[in-house]
Amino acid sequence: MPGEFALIDRIRARARRRDDVVLGIGDDAAVLAVPPGQQLVVASDTLVVGVHFPEETAPADLGWKALAVNLSDLAAMAATPAWCTLALTLPGADADWLDAFLDGFLELADQHEVSLVGGDTTRGPLSITVTAFGLVPTGQALRRDGARVGDDVWVSGTIGDAAGALAQWRTRGPASAKLRWRLDRPTPRIEAGLALRGLASAGIDLSDGLAADLGHVLAASGVGARLELGRLPTSRTLADHFAEPRRWELQLSGGDDYELCFTAPAARAFEIEQALAALDLPSTVVGQIEAEPGLRFGTPDGDTYTPAATGYQHFEGGHA
Amino acid sequence: MPGEFALIDRIRARARRRDDVVLGIGDDAAVLAVPPGQQLVVASDTLVVGVHFPEETAPADLGWKALAVNLSDLAAMAATPAWCTLALTLPGADADWLDAFLDGFLELADQHEVSLVGGDTTRGPLSITVTAFGLVPTGQALRRDGARVGDDVWVSGTIGDAAGALAQWRTRGPASAKLRWRLDRPTPRIEAGLALRGLASAGIDLSDGLAADLGHVLAASGVGARLELGRLPTSRTLADHFAEPRRWELQLSGGDDYELCFTAPAARAFEIEQALAALDLPSTVVGQIEAEPGLRFGTPDGDTYTPAATGYQHFEGGHA
Repeated sequence: MPGEFALIDRIRARARRRDDVVLGIGDDAAVLAVPPGQQLVVASDTLVVGVHFPEETAPADLGWKALAVNLSDLAAMAATPAWCTLALTLPGADADWLDAFLDGFLELADQHEVSLVGGDTTRGPLSITVTAFGLVPTGQALRRDGARVGDDVWVSGTIGDAAGALAQWRTRGPASAKLRWRLDRPTPRIEAGLALRGLASAGIDLSDGLAADLGHVLAASGVGARLELGRLPTSRTLADHFAEPRRWELQLSGGDDYELCFTAPAARAFEIEQALAALDLPSTVVGQIEAEPGLRFGTPDGDTYTPAATGYQHFEGGHA
Repeated sequence: MPGEFALIDRIRARARRRDDVVLGIGDDAAVLAVPPGQQLVVASDTLVVGVHFPEETAPADLGWKALAVNLSDLAAMAATPAWCTLALTLPGADADWLDAFLDGFLELADQHEVSLVGGDTTRGPLSITVTAFGLVPTGQALRRDGARVGDDVWVSGTIGDAAGALAQWRTRGPASAKLRWRLDRPTPRIEAGLALRGLASAGIDLSDGLAADLGHVLAASGVGARLELGRLPTSRTLADHFAEPRRWELQLSGGDDYELCFTAPAARAFEIEQALAALDLPSTVVGQIEAEPGLRFGTPDGDTYTPAATGYQHFEGGHA
């Protein structure tokens, strides 16, 4: 295995550098220029082998996803991504593994003009912590605590695909490549987040499943919500592989889709739909904010539905 | 084991919040206000059990050290610490472990008025990644690439103590509590770094050992250096436990002291000595920058000395 410094050199050689990176990889710390009038937005997430991803996951997919989950947090704040750091713990990885990992990581970084400015490489069980830095005009971050009674609850794109892929992986049955792609290569909804500035009242990204994540918004805002299961945006592929109510469970309790869930006054509905349609991203109102705390679900038949579980479980059994 | 959200709540309840933290723990990302005229300085380091610390290390010591190594990087940049994030991967830790870890972590954070603003808790082999954020007036960061021929090479405090503790730990022989304290509770030289703004030409913190770390400064600056081993600042405890040349090896190749090594024109020597003495921190000129690349060592007898190894080895065998 190359030494730590050789690995860092390898990373440095491939990292692009924005003009606002005063000092990138190679000193004790990075130095970054935050423009006047902008606030700094910081998200940090860890992926651990055997908890967040199966051991056989391709390194390029891992690289992509490790950055994607953090950019998704910036998207949920309506922030523009700028920089990131990478703390990579490897059991004894070779340069080929690192190069493949960087292929995925830097492909996504380049798409969003994110500079990798620092980090650490360490020997140990495979684990990846990325810290992502974004910028938002002062006071315009999209928070969790702004949902108001009467607001619509929106979801971008379709949900449940990644959970469907995990369900198929667990049973070792027939697997859909389309679903698996959504699990391995989630698209952080950066442009959607930016489009929602000034329109949405609260927002979060769907990493732990709609029920749990919307639950955070409700708790932070001191409100409740009712969702209509018949409105959950569903890909054709998911519908082909999973029937209700199993599909609803995947959509409510499955994470890893990294779509945005947000709330907005009903008067903004047309603007929102147009703004996201302009990004080729469907958006769907799935329910309404109510004064009564908690989360309720209605079926297409008008019944009330009680999910089997609302917490997210990672593929191996989860955090809790 | 409490779930992830319970652990995060526990952390949030204890984290202090500076006025420039617009949004701390509990949203998708933190929002931070960087003052005009300041640049952002970012350092990120990981500690892994079995690589960077023995498994039996007390959780409070771990918490302290995980933050200290990152604040030390900020010190080496002459930055004022402001915020940090904590990505904590725990095999199945209980609330007691977390509380003890936070005791050490937050003790140091509070000393330097650092707000813990976010992060992640995950299940997996024990590993800690801290990202620390500092501020420096635009253009005043202390870099590695500013050393010039004729500059003095300085070291703050005394060096070799942490390496001495590791050497004692490895042989399971008599151990000095004073040396062990320096290994477990390193003091990031924040005030010293600030005092060196405008005085030092280059700087780095001693995490991997004087030879390796000064080597980075020399490489970045395109110069070499000659050090006098007789001038290496040595604690009485280290001298009591280790004789030369073994002691020199510990001081040159042993890391984890987290003192600062910096260079400065000889004309600034008096100012530097005064500035650090005002902080009750001894400082010592240990050599000079020379045009010839590489690092040379002189003994008190005027001989040239060749160290057995110049790279740092972590306690278990190291990165390389």
